[in-house]
Amino acid sequence: MDMYRLDLNSDMGESFGAYRLGRDSELLDVVTSANIACGYHAGDPATMRETVKLALAKGVGIGAHPGLPDLLGFGRRNMDISPKEAYDMVVYQVGALYGFVRAEGGTMQHVKAHGALYNMAAVRAPLAEAIAEAVYDVNPELILLGLSGSELVKAGQKIGLRTASEVFADRTYQQDGTLTPRRQPDAMIQEEQRAVDQVIRMVKEGTVQSQQGTPVSIEAHTVCIHGDGPHAVEFAVALRKSLADAGITVEPMSRRFA
Amino acid sequence: MDMYRLDLNSDMGESFGAYRLGRDSELLDVVTSANIACGYHAGDPATMRETVKLALAKGVGIGAHPGLPDLLGFGRRNMDISPKEAYDMVVYQVGALYGFVRAEGGTMQHVKAHGALYNMAAVRAPLAEAIAEAVYDVNPELILLGLSGSELVKAGQKIGLRTASEVFADRTYQQDGTLTPRRQPDAMIQEEQRAVDQVIRMVKEGTVQSQQGTPVSIEAHTVCIHGDGPHAVEFAVALRKSLADAGITVEPMSRRFA
Amino acid sequence: MDMYRLDLNSDMGESFGAYRLGRDSELLDVVTSANIACGYHAGDPATMRETVKLALAKGVGIGAHPGLPDLLGFGRRNMDISPKEAYDMVVYQVGALYGFVRAEGGTMQHVKAHGALYNMAAVRAPLAEAIAEAVYDVNPELILLGLSGSELVKAGQKIGLRTASEVFADRTYQQDGTLTPRRQPDAMIQEEQRAVDQVIRMVKEGTVQSQQGTPVSIEAHTVCIHGDGPHAVEFAVALRKSLADAGITVEPMSRRFA
Amino acid sequence: MDMYRLDLNSDMGESFGAYRLGRDSELLDVVTSANIACGYHAGDPATMRETVKLALAKGVGIGAHPGLPDLLGFGRRNMDISPKEAYDMVVYQVGALYGFVRAEGGTMQHVKAHGALYNMAAVRAPLAEAIAEAVYDVNPELILLGLSGSELVKAGQKIGLRTASEVFADRTYQQDGTLTPRRQPDAMIQEEQRAVDQVIRMVKEGTVQSQQGTPVSIEAHTVCIHGDGPHAVEFAVALRKSLADAGITVEPMSRRFA
Repeated sequence: MDMYRLDLNSDMGESFGAYRLGRDSELLDVVTSANIACGYHAGDPATMRETVKLALAKGVGIGAHPGLPDLLGFGRRNMDISPKEAYDMVVYQVGALYGFVRAEGGTMQHVKAHGALYNMAAVRAPLAEAIAEAVYDVNPELILLGLSGSELVKAGQKIGLRTASEVFADRTYQQDGTLTPRRQPDAMIQEEQRAVDQVIRMVKEGTVQSQQGTPVSIEAHTVCIHGDGPHAVEFAVALRKSLADAGITVEPMSRRFA
Repeated sequence: MDMYRLDLNSDMGESFGAYRLGRDSELLDVVTSANIACGYHAGDPATMRETVKLALAKGVGIGAHPGLPDLLGFGRRNMDISPKEAYDMVVYQVGALYGFVRAEGGTMQHVKAHGALYNMAAVRAPLAEAIAEAVYDVNPELILLGLSGSELVKAGQKIGLRTASEVFADRTYQQDGTLTPRRQPDAMIQEEQRAVDQVIRMVKEGTVQSQQGTPVSIEAHTVCIHGDGPHAVEFAVALRKSLADAGITVEPMSRRFA
Repeated sequence: MDMYRLDLNSDMGESFGAYRLGRDSELLDVVTSANIACGYHAGDPATMRETVKLALAKGVGIGAHPGLPDLLGFGRRNMDISPKEAYDMVVYQVGALYGFVRAEGGTMQHVKAHGALYNMAAVRAPLAEAIAEAVYDVNPELILLGLSGSELVKAGQKIGLRTASEVFADRTYQQDGTLTPRRQPDAMIQEEQRAVDQVIRMVKEGTVQSQQGTPVSIEAHTVCIHGDGPHAVEFAVALRKSLADAGITVEPMSRRFA
Repeated sequence: MDMYRLDLNSDMGESFGAYRLGRDSELLDVVTSANIACGYHAGDPATMRETVKLALAKGVGIGAHPGLPDLLGFGRRNMDISPKEAYDMVVYQVGALYGFVRAEGGTMQHVKAHGALYNMAAVRAPLAEAIAEAVYDVNPELILLGLSGSELVKAGQKIGLRTASEVFADRTYQQDGTLTPRRQPDAMIQEEQRAVDQVIRMVKEGTVQSQQGTPVSIEAHTVCIHGDGPHAVEFAVALRKSLADAGITVEPMSRRFA
């Protein structure tokens, strides 16, 4: 009999110098994987070191979270970068985090692209392939995290990486398995119970109810836990409890491949 | 019988985006170790990848060349950074270059701090120790390059790193083994032959004639080859030939420890 | 009787710290207006001061050349910035250059957006309007330079700015007055005489021969002189001579409104 | 009969992109002059525009707050910049803020250097003179704010600028009129009443009680109001009330020269 399992991942280490951001320490008590900013869209060397150290201490899987070189825009503005530029900036950032992981005696588990880089790589195959290649070239043992059904997950599988398909608790889905665009009024799920139920169904049945009313197949290896918002940590705690009650093991994504 | 040997190192990969700098390809035919900029004082991800690739193709030892976060000042302006900040910025930059070295299937040989970071670490023990610790923590097999007789070399030895003592062909020395400050009129050696002779004597006799007229003990594992100036490459070629004629083997610094 | 007149503009002040770029001093002897980089895509405070000083000494019209905050990409990569973000970055950069113009006792003549910002503003009306508004708000006396027929020129006229329509000597045009995209084989004009003739015709007849063989109306107030390329300055000198021979007065764009 | 008057100044506009910092809106209800960050040590174009707008709406005097190009270190780390570099970075930043002041239809009142730049300029005459010259060259009507008794105030007076001498409520002073270094245990004044009394005495008597027990002459035109700390705004409100009770008019520093 198969075991149900799910990883909870969250963005971390987004402080920069005097600018503090996020509730990393609290979140690290709830999530099982941390996506640590690498200095391009957020993060700085001191923050990277402290976050790696804290994640290791709490047994949370460590991931690099490379983004676009746009600190002012927090990596959220699309930039017309070439696949080669994407390759290079991913190698650079993954390498930089790797330095801290080695210095702290840990292991890097995964890579998750940030913001606009994540979104562009979800739909543009050449960009997705460049990112997958960069991750593979730095370390073929790394897990590549991408939006479930995205070009990035496909590119990762194609090159021979292990991949983790990400789903969202608080977003609705379309008939083709894509997320409902945020500009549409029904994009977000506000009710906590409905969000929890959506995740449980995705894990146990491998489907999500689309906004068109039909069930859609979806792969759910990890769910994105937001770090911002007043109730982010509280929701994560509640979700984790509900998952346990539903018989779903919450654990770092690497365990799936162990 | 002991063999005489010397490494020739040069700064590389200092281009940034549309800004091209240096004659890297030519220099890589002459030197045996390359200090590759890591994006703080100079360099960018594409340049790092290309320089690593080229150095590997030419059999030149690869080193990380971390600097201060001051692209505008090319890392040449002293900054009052704390030892912990120095630690973090070295781990970050060495890690970033490490990404490209892994991606290209190579090995990193050494670390040389750049500009103001190099100069400050030569005389400030706490800063030197933080840098040595950073290098050690990322990889204890790395060789730490520092000014001959400097605090950085001492710190490297203290923590258990292999170290390479750097000397200068075109700089004069003081009775205490330090370089004559650049602001003094007799700081530079202009005559090519005198510069070559100084290097040969440092390698073979372990001494340098000080400006005070007395010989001073000095350790010479590697000599700094400048990449700028109209005759930089030409001097390097001439030096290398003279070293060979004097029975000194020119090879990457790692061979010393092989 | 109407006088024929034309401004020659060129990008300037694109050096950054140790990185030197361009043949500014030579170009300033040929062109009549200088677009001075403001520190976002290129340029630094020292370079801005020196370039303003030199332009004033040579009687060349001074313009701000604001770009995207992307030094690594030289401002050539499109970024999904909002109109408000465009407004703010133009006010910031024009203001910064204004500081040097005041310090040197000069006057600012015009504003020309750089690279991707110029290209995006040529076709996106909301972005064009935000840039025009920024220029107007800083100083309604400034001339807004834009691609002939572009949204930016329209936005400038709409808000009440004086505008200068830019044409290219070395680019071919389409039936609708737009430039032939660079990816097409016939985008560039290689023959110097043909390039010169195209400019003279644009000024004297107000038309350009399209790639479809039909003449197209075009407004030609200023022509873009490239600073890069081995023969850039030489071509500018030849063009200027030919214009004089054809009875076209070459002078800063501000004279048109005097 | 002479009127007693004092300006309250505070650092503002230190947010950067997604990073929010400070309680600007509340502080602007209490202080009379705002030092607005210009994008080097903190601040971004959008924040500059919003802060200028808010200060104008609340009748608070607007000042440029140029700092070192060190966002990561918040401009607090000394850098070995040359006087010319200081000149250029002050012109650039004052100019940039000037853009927003013009766009919002306001007037710039003063310039206050930030952090390490302020501290270095307090004791290094050549740096102080370069900063004073930069301010004067951009606009000789600007008031230059500096530490009371500092080289910066002297340099401002020497070049012909109006100057504002800054004092601190919560810092103790030495016999020579300098601030007790922060590393000393008696550097800070913790008791609110003692801090208020010190300010009132400085304004009314022109003296401060030194740590050596003797009164020292001091010029007090403006007092620094901190924006951080849990009770910063509350202390400012209390101080302002006490000043009014003591018959001291609290008003922008420019009124002194009206």
